[in-house]
Amino acid sequence: MNTSSAPTDCTRIRRLAELASYEQASLHAVIDAAYLCHIAFQDAKGTHCIPTACWRQDGYLYIHGSNGGRLTKILTSGIQACVTITHLDGLVMARSAFNHAMNYRSAMIYGCFEKLGDEADKHLALAQFMEKLAPGRQAQCRPGNDKEMAATTVMRIALDEAAVKIRSGGPEDAEEDMDIPVWAGVLPLVQVHGEPIIDSLCSMAAPDYVRNWVR
Amino acid sequence: MNTSSAPTDCTRIRRLAELASYEQASLHAVIDAAYLCHIAFQDAKGTHCIPTACWRQDGYLYIHGSNGGRLTKILTSGIQACVTITHLDGLVMARSAFNHAMNYRSAMIYGCFEKLGDEADKHLALAQFMEKLAPGRQAQCRPGNDKEMAATTVMRIALDEAAVKIRSGGPEDAEEDMDIPVWAGVLPLVQVHGEPIIDSLCSMAAPDYVRNWVR
Repeated sequence: MNTSSAPTDCTRIRRLAELASYEQASLHAVIDAAYLCHIAFQDAKGTHCIPTACWRQDGYLYIHGSNGGRLTKILTSGIQACVTITHLDGLVMARSAFNHAMNYRSAMIYGCFEKLGDEADKHLALAQFMEKLAPGRQAQCRPGNDKEMAATTVMRIALDEAAVKIRSGGPEDAEEDMDIPVWAGVLPLVQVHGEPIIDSLCSMAAPDYVRNWVR
Repeated sequence: MNTSSAPTDCTRIRRLAELASYEQASLHAVIDAAYLCHIAFQDAKGTHCIPTACWRQDGYLYIHGSNGGRLTKILTSGIQACVTITHLDGLVMARSAFNHAMNYRSAMIYGCFEKLGDEADKHLALAQFMEKLAPGRQAQCRPGNDKEMAATTVMRIALDEAAVKIRSGGPEDAEEDMDIPVWAGVLPLVQVHGEPIIDSLCSMAAPDYVRNWVR
């Protein structure tokens, strides 16, 4: 399903508006490729930008935190937040300094987080997070006990007010700059999976998600 | 020089405080490894989190933008901002679900941006940015003309109120969890440089910064 939501006053992209997308599939792809997001919020001390782990399920982005943490306390108070995810894909080398750019995929989500109050919902959400990190691992490691679960808050924000901005491809120079004798193209940046590092005290054989980690 | 600045009410790290650093060398290393940052700020419409390119020179983090852009207009108005940079280095697989973690290097900077009003300062800062992206390229591409320079704002924020948080290494499980039969270790994530992609209309030989891109 690739529905779209109309841009709001906050999510309407004005700079380089031709790079904007309000399609659900694009939004989900940007979120699903990420392990972390940056969350902006305001409290009595000012405006803050905090990185935290995230995952998606259906039309929500989820995060979790310690009950005692500032992020948890503030976000569950119902204030407006802005969640941004950015993947940097490359440096774009144009013939003119001014036309240099970056290739990227980014998503911005506006809204308020809600706390998952139901214990079963919380367990399910955390299991889905683990499934994203390491498929099948949830059944292997020790699950959270009552004390650990009680100390953890899971929150989610609806993806209703969101926008995606993507730049890809090579430089776009003006006609009159095309003969400038300088290399032009893209210097790609790629996030790759490195060779798994087994804990020195672990003697277990590597499960699928470890053996398949380096793709 | 590895001076340190005392944490302020904003930068004092409370969650996992043992991972915090207020050393200048750590802060510079996190910033210099990044091509982009996320900036949180507040305007009449709410709280926003915008990704943008950044670079460092001495004790300042620099950004640039179009004069007409929202980010430029708001940040040059003197409001407080929070700049965050996060490098994700790996997923930490612990024996218990609760002790899973991520390895990362992150920096948070609080303050107000100031606009570079002097044209010579602006030219120098943009040249330093290009030097970070592609050493030597500034002398090869067409420099910004008067119109392009006039349309561009360069801003900087002092690194005086900043904190760094770094997690590295393997899982930290409780003694009673050490015998759980599950793989434990780190699944690394690494940002690498991909093979340069020359523009289809470019026939120039690759300069050093292109030939040396893939390390």
